[in-house]
Amino acid sequence: MLIHSASQLLTLQGGVQRGHQLGQLGIIEDGAVFIENGLIAASGTSVDLLSKYPQAERFDARGRVVMPGFVDPHTHLIFSGNRALEFEMRLEGKSYMEIMAAGGGILNTVKATRLADVSELKTSARARMTGMLAHGTTTAEAKSGYGLEINSELAQLEVILELDAEGLLELVPTFLGAHAIAPEYDGNPVGFTLALSNRMLPELLEWWRSNASGRPLPFVDVFCEQGAFSLPQSRIILQAAKEMGFPLKMHVDEFKNLGGASLAVELGATSADHLVKTSPADIKALGDSDTVAVSLPATPFGLGQHEFTPAKAIIAANGILAIASDLNPGTAWCESMQFIIALACRYLHLTVAQAIAAATINAAAAVGRTDRVGSLEPGKQADLLVLDSNDYRNLGYKFGSNQVARVMKRGKWVAINKNETPYL
Amino acid sequence: MLIHSASQLLTLQGGVQRGHQLGQLGIIEDGAVFIENGLIAASGTSVDLLSKYPQAERFDARGRVVMPGFVDPHTHLIFSGNRALEFEMRLEGKSYMEIMAAGGGILNTVKATRLADVSELKTSARARMTGMLAHGTTTAEAKSGYGLEINSELAQLEVILELDAEGLLELVPTFLGAHAIAPEYDGNPVGFTLALSNRMLPELLEWWRSNASGRPLPFVDVFCEQGAFSLPQSRIILQAAKEMGFPLKMHVDEFKNLGGASLAVELGATSADHLVKTSPADIKALGDSDTVAVSLPATPFGLGQHEFTPAKAIIAANGILAIASDLNPGTAWCESMQFIIALACRYLHLTVAQAIAAATINAAAAVGRTDRVGSLEPGKQADLLVLDSNDYRNLGYKFGSNQVARVMKRGKWVAINKNETPYL
Repeated sequence: MLIHSASQLLTLQGGVQRGHQLGQLGIIEDGAVFIENGLIAASGTSVDLLSKYPQAERFDARGRVVMPGFVDPHTHLIFSGNRALEFEMRLEGKSYMEIMAAGGGILNTVKATRLADVSELKTSARARMTGMLAHGTTTAEAKSGYGLEINSELAQLEVILELDAEGLLELVPTFLGAHAIAPEYDGNPVGFTLALSNRMLPELLEWWRSNASGRPLPFVDVFCEQGAFSLPQSRIILQAAKEMGFPLKMHVDEFKNLGGASLAVELGATSADHLVKTSPADIKALGDSDTVAVSLPATPFGLGQHEFTPAKAIIAANGILAIASDLNPGTAWCESMQFIIALACRYLHLTVAQAIAAATINAAAAVGRTDRVGSLEPGKQADLLVLDSNDYRNLGYKFGSNQVARVMKRGKWVAINKNETPYL
Repeated sequence: MLIHSASQLLTLQGGVQRGHQLGQLGIIEDGAVFIENGLIAASGTSVDLLSKYPQAERFDARGRVVMPGFVDPHTHLIFSGNRALEFEMRLEGKSYMEIMAAGGGILNTVKATRLADVSELKTSARARMTGMLAHGTTTAEAKSGYGLEINSELAQLEVILELDAEGLLELVPTFLGAHAIAPEYDGNPVGFTLALSNRMLPELLEWWRSNASGRPLPFVDVFCEQGAFSLPQSRIILQAAKEMGFPLKMHVDEFKNLGGASLAVELGATSADHLVKTSPADIKALGDSDTVAVSLPATPFGLGQHEFTPAKAIIAANGILAIASDLNPGTAWCESMQFIIALACRYLHLTVAQAIAAATINAAAAVGRTDRVGSLEPGKQADLLVLDSNDYRNLGYKFGSNQVARVMKRGKWVAINKNETPYL
């Protein structure tokens, strides 16, 4: 298929965008892209490609923007239950302790998720995936982490693998057994740390070999934060995971700076995520490394806070910046990477072009998939969006609605948004 | 028609919600609403209404929320051109003077709008109205204000009347000739003030009598702000408008406190809007009055700012609080009142219930239409929404996407949102 007459074809070609390189969209005006076997075969101007591939089936983009599908590199997609009550209590000014006493917090979701069976978890996740896909996310990382014991965690990974196999929204699995201290280890974080590193990780490795043969190992992630895992505890878990061959991710600096970003760099983690209270030393460490700095602006927004990732400092330090939704039931129920771009423009002080690069090619780096997704270059998957406007800048300028008209995954249209009204 | 089986029917019955009364949703569980001749004829439980109206055509809400359509009481709907370039310059750190030198600001839109003919203005506004309607806005105030000379201002009002007559999104017209100092009066704000009060307002009155016979007079609004109209200038214009019988609105305290809210109260204005830098004395004046306090949180958000309307103080002072989008090409291109609710929960510190009341019945008060819209009570227009979920709290809890499944205006479905995907 030949998609032609894009006002702007954003190729994002040229690989990961480090430091001030961020924001190179590789724009081809009146652009076209030729797709074969679900892959990008060529990109160029419409004139060139229409003459080069005269027999191809055609799709006329009619002067709209065509760009890579979004990669959302940090989501807690798999969970059961709903924390609207907790959200309302917070708005009413209830304290954290009152909310916990009413059954709020991560352990609320853990309780509901442990009780849910695989089919329930799939159904609720699929509803969120429909929303994500409709808003242009074509690849998303998805974490376990609402089980905190091995069978429930593995059930969540099973759900991720099965949903990924459906072939629509592509999922990149992450094991987040270290999301919170399991209720069984209340008051004993060291005990849970040792259970994770000595028992759960080997069980995960064995399960993966039996159940996901041929797939690369999932990421192992740790929530390094006051009240969750300390820096030494995080190190124990991640070191064990690294020795078993797992690629690494970390939650760092969401509420307190514990030095997690530097640990992520030291251990060669693929990404360090959240990065709100990040120190200058940690920013420097990120800038000198290949660990992708993943900002999650929907989380402070979701909590009504005013402090966001020091993104400009990370760029100035030559870091690789990506953005993600942090979709989760507690702080950020957001299915739209477009809204993350709008937030990034306003509160991370990125240009629209920078935010788009952070949500595509650099987000692909944050999940180790730059070989397949994040740009429209020959050999990559034909994962792309047709926007409803002729100017990519509208993705930041306009906010609060869906600007994606159509979504293609591996060469097939997988979402078409329609508003039926007598106006049209 | 009988709409039944709503998990929650939000009636918003009982009139305007002042002070701490804000947030009374009038919820009927397993609710139903009976519609006749485009009006609400009855509301109650599904059991009751299904037995009372056995012959009615039925629509099964299937356990979703049914609620009044949103009223958006402050929009700059009618304009030509686009200020994405200016948005990008701001993100790149360019100064206000650099942006003005590159042709930015309100006068940029004035230039484009003066050049546009009525049919162009209608087409571009209708595209925005489609988005607003799809997100659940069934009544919106719409201002002129990008002409700053009488013929262009009247052309914008003509567009508003014609678009309203199309019968889909209902528009409430406002004359905002006093939006900025016209370029012809550069350096002479007093001259433009006198031109407005002595010449343009009488011309408006005469035009209205000839062209909008039978319709109530439009609102007259003034942008009372440093760099626009001072407090004494605002008083001259509004006093003249009041003497001619126009109902009044004011833009106050967006960037500076000039005492505009107290003037609005003194003159009996229907609403005072923006209210960011509002002083305690102005808040007290609002609380003691029937002037609706309209907060526009998308504007500070759009500008990436951190200071919002002191909404809790306005509630504590017994004020009537409403929220609006401020849809405009400069600071807030937002077509979704759902997003305004999400912002209001986080940065105005409202509960979801308070934000919904501020976006429906109190917003109706801000445009003088509580007799017809803003609640689902017998005799009011059947302007309503079917959400895609079973809990109204999701309107605040979830953000960045459209949670409206269907929109009804005066008894007819006017928007149905569909996402076509193999998932469904």
